[in-house]
Amino acid sequence: MLAVFGHTNPDTDAISSALVYAHLLTRLGVPAQAYRLGDLNFETAFVLRELRMEAPPMLPALAAGTPVALVDHNESGQSAPNIAELTVTRVVDHHKLGDLTTSQPPFLRFEPVGCTGTILLKLHREAGLDVEALDAKLMLSAILSDTLHFRSPTTTQDDRDAVAFLAPVAGVTDVEAYALAMFAAKSDLGDTPAAQLLKMDYKVFPFGEPAQQWGVGVIETTNPAYVFGRKEELLRAMDEARAEDGLNGVLLSVVDILNETNRTFVLSATEEKVLREAFGVEATDGVADLGNRISRKKQIVPTLERYFAPEA
Amino acid sequence: MLAVFGHTNPDTDAISSALVYAHLLTRLGVPAQAYRLGDLNFETAFVLRELRMEAPPMLPALAAGTPVALVDHNESGQSAPNIAELTVTRVVDHHKLGDLTTSQPPFLRFEPVGCTGTILLKLHREAGLDVEALDAKLMLSAILSDTLHFRSPTTTQDDRDAVAFLAPVAGVTDVEAYALAMFAAKSDLGDTPAAQLLKMDYKVFPFGEPAQQWGVGVIETTNPAYVFGRKEELLRAMDEARAEDGLNGVLLSVVDILNETNRTFVLSATEEKVLREAFGVEATDGVADLGNRISRKKQIVPTLERYFAPEA
Ligand SMILES: [Mn+2]
Ligand SMILES: [Mn+2]
Repeated sequence: MLAVFGHTNPDTDAISSALVYAHLLTRLGVPAQAYRLGDLNFETAFVLRELRMEAPPMLPALAAGTPVALVDHNESGQSAPNIAELTVTRVVDHHKLGDLTTSQPPFLRFEPVGCTGTILLKLHREAGLDVEALDAKLMLSAILSDTLHFRSPTTTQDDRDAVAFLAPVAGVTDVEAYALAMFAAKSDLGDTPAAQLLKMDYKVFPFGEPAQQWGVGVIETTNPAYVFGRKEELLRAMDEARAEDGLNGVLLSVVDILNETNRTFVLSATEEKVLREAFGVEATDGVADLGNRISRKKQIVPTLERYFAPEA
Repeated sequence: MLAVFGHTNPDTDAISSALVYAHLLTRLGVPAQAYRLGDLNFETAFVLRELRMEAPPMLPALAAGTPVALVDHNESGQSAPNIAELTVTRVVDHHKLGDLTTSQPPFLRFEPVGCTGTILLKLHREAGLDVEALDAKLMLSAILSDTLHFRSPTTTQDDRDAVAFLAPVAGVTDVEAYALAMFAAKSDLGDTPAAQLLKMDYKVFPFGEPAQQWGVGVIETTNPAYVFGRKEELLRAMDEARAEDGLNGVLLSVVDILNETNRTFVLSATEEKVLREAFGVEATDGVADLGNRISRKKQIVPTLERYFAPEA
């Protein structure tokens, strides 16, 4: 049974794609089981509740050599703890290629589109399989989530085409209303502890050589005022993460989904200097205005990579 | 204009796939130009002569940041000299994933099939494009070459299906006869200098940590007696390659295509020890009988990798 899973701190794409790809592989004669590498966020919980679907179980400890399929990620730092010992046979992803290697020729399907779900829809169509309604709604939800319903600059025509194809199959007649309901669920953060808020959509990236380790969190919300009301707590959580995880820097971007803006919490002079030199922005009172740079993948991480890259 | 190229010491798949993928991308609206990273071997020259097609030009020096597409390889040691400075936007390959990384999400299409040509045919069909006769014969030739007309254990049902589809499009009525003509052309080595024979189908692999560098050549031939007649010369060429390229070991497998056997030239006690411990075979008079292990990719390299791997 092939284990299929998305990245740690799973988002809707990581969970949906694991479920959809495991189902697709099983239909294609490769028995597979979806897992997750962490707690559901509020948006994903909303999506599964809508579908009356159970969350995939947490990934158990896997013995060395166990074959696994990765979706929506490929870097070891975002994967199963012992990923280097596991046998990666398949990856479906839309991120840059990191430190993945394999000992045998794998199935790899990477496309520079807005969401893994968009690629999974192509895999169904290429295999000549009809798309079942549950799978359609999972892929639809993932695409709306990853692209912020086409607001993100990561959005491609393929993502728009996929949503147009999937919405009727999923029985979603008002896509805009469904996306807003997802985003409202995601923004309804209640009394979630600050440390958990920070890590909800959070990735650690190696930058430069020798590599610095930077934690970059994002909170996408329709209610930024709520997040700003918890700024001091969140800065404390960032400080703790930096110390506990031995990081060189931590950033937390508060993305206002509906207004498409990014205001980023800045912990200390280290991060202030990097934001000034890499993005040309000044932090005031622990907050830097990153304007419309709402995509970590496309607008934040590449700039930091170039900034930290050794001189050619 | 996207530059598309296969590995150094190009084989028929490396050349054919560069030509076919560049043409496919151009038809899909991505202008592309095929290149090669070395001289044609006799088989590939035969195939292009049959098609009255010019060889792709040698890859010129490319400025840092130039976008490139790789076919039939992904490891930097088998690619353009400054591959680390180039921007890899696409890879179509059927080898294990090595040290490739990208700074942006790429198009990757890897499948564990016998030939890149088999994957390229799928890309045509997925794009809804008809396959032109020249492209069909290039892909057909590559598949017959890489799989030794289905003799290699790397052969999959997809490769067989691809040949069945391509042969009529290519106008090849007798596939067996065409494959034998290709293999005869490949085996007609004339007075090729030994150093060139060694490097005709030759790859350097890093094994273990800290990595040893091993050169592993293969001569696939329908006329092994000819190659054995040049054994002393070839052993001298292996010795020179080891010294000049600073290698830890050099192996040269003589694969008898029609009888599906592998007798490997063994340079020194270093290689003898590795063959004994990794494969359980003894060398006699500079030759080790590796039986039916005719696939470097599937039967030689993985065993050496396991042998050199650090203890878990
Ligand atoms: Mn995603
Ligand atoms: Mn090949």
